[in-house]
Amino acid sequence: MSIIPALQWRYATKKMNGEKVSQEKISNILEAARLAPTSSGLQPFEILVITNQSLKEQLKPFAFNQSQITDCSHLLVFAAWSAYDVAKISYYFDYYETERNLPEGFSNGYKNNVIKQLTSMTPERQFEHAARQVYIALGMALTEAGALEVDSIPMEGFINHEIDKLLHLEEKGLRSVVLLPIGYRDAENDWQAELKKVRKPNDYMISYIE
Amino acid sequence: MSIIPALQWRYATKKMNGEKVSQEKISNILEAARLAPTSSGLQPFEILVITNQSLKEQLKPFAFNQSQITDCSHLLVFAAWSAYDVAKISYYFDYYETERNLPEGFSNGYKNNVIKQLTSMTPERQFEHAARQVYIALGMALTEAGALEVDSIPMEGFINHEIDKLLHLEEKGLRSVVLLPIGYRDAENDWQAELKKVRKPNDYMISYIE
Repeated sequence: MSIIPALQWRYATKKMNGEKVSQEKISNILEAARLAPTSSGLQPFEILVITNQSLKEQLKPFAFNQSQITDCSHLLVFAAWSAYDVAKISYYFDYYETERNLPEGFSNGYKNNVIKQLTSMTPERQFEHAARQVYIALGMALTEAGALEVDSIPMEGFINHEIDKLLHLEEKGLRSVVLLPIGYRDAENDWQAELKKVRKPNDYMISYIE
Repeated sequence: MSIIPALQWRYATKKMNGEKVSQEKISNILEAARLAPTSSGLQPFEILVITNQSLKEQLKPFAFNQSQITDCSHLLVFAAWSAYDVAKISYYFDYYETERNLPEGFSNGYKNNVIKQLTSMTPERQFEHAARQVYIALGMALTEAGALEVDSIPMEGFINHEIDKLLHLEEKGLRSVVLLPIGYRDAENDWQAELKKVRKPNDYMISYIE
């Protein structure tokens, strides 16, 4: 198996047609994001899956009125932990011990190191570290969507604090990082649908040291 | 097609056996990274592919002597642009116009907006923005490796400035972000190889707003 065909198939969909994506496909896309590896296994983010049309309308102006916000089937909002929190890290390690049938406290040494290391950074660095992990999951969600021939477009251009306010993310210790409308292309009206994918040549970005 | 089986198969390989990965598989893993979508299409990073054993030995102490640095087949170093540079951005847009058979200067308006927006950030924010894009490509490289049943382990824990110095990254306007040893597991000596994958439950990290 190779994911290259899925990556060749996908593109940043500029126009969507409002058609619904099945729950099975959405579940697979979310499962790909959930299976993404993250630093120390912490998975320091949450994903909101918005199908409520009125909420999508409210969000749209904060994403520069891009049509995919309302014409998508499911709007995924990837939100990272706004800082590393001892309770959230401890939840993970407790869960890890349960899942692996380890004695309670087995991973305390490792856990305490992780807590010490992560919480010694400034809160902004902590958020940035968590936000980077989001992008691994984003990569996997995008790939799974492509593999299932479902369209998507990652969006970084939006007014984060307005989206955070509208979705009550701050109260949950979260900050929005990326929006990912999922749906189906409006092929007739998306002039980018058939264009050649542009990626810089291998030689420009990859070098071998043998 | 679905990438879930590949994501289930892969794990953070703690011990590698030194076996070589074929050039064909390495090329596919790099191609997955190259096809990753990035902000404004800029692909603001480079990948160094190190097979030189003596260089791997020199790098190892700066990655806390983790054995995979020397026991891997190919060591990938993902390095992001240390800041957004008008020349590098312009190269992309020139290339884009050539690839799409557009008249020279066709994308000037968009290009100038991108330059204005990105270079208005502090240099550290620019690097951080570029580093986030690396993680999309990392996610795709990890997934392709899994799809090809090749092992890998992403590493963030290393002394960045020492690696940058050894690989002369600063002169190239780059800073190291992630190391990715690629190789084959030493199954007998990697106690993690057969353990259950631990990921937090859906309910904990995914919520629907309907």
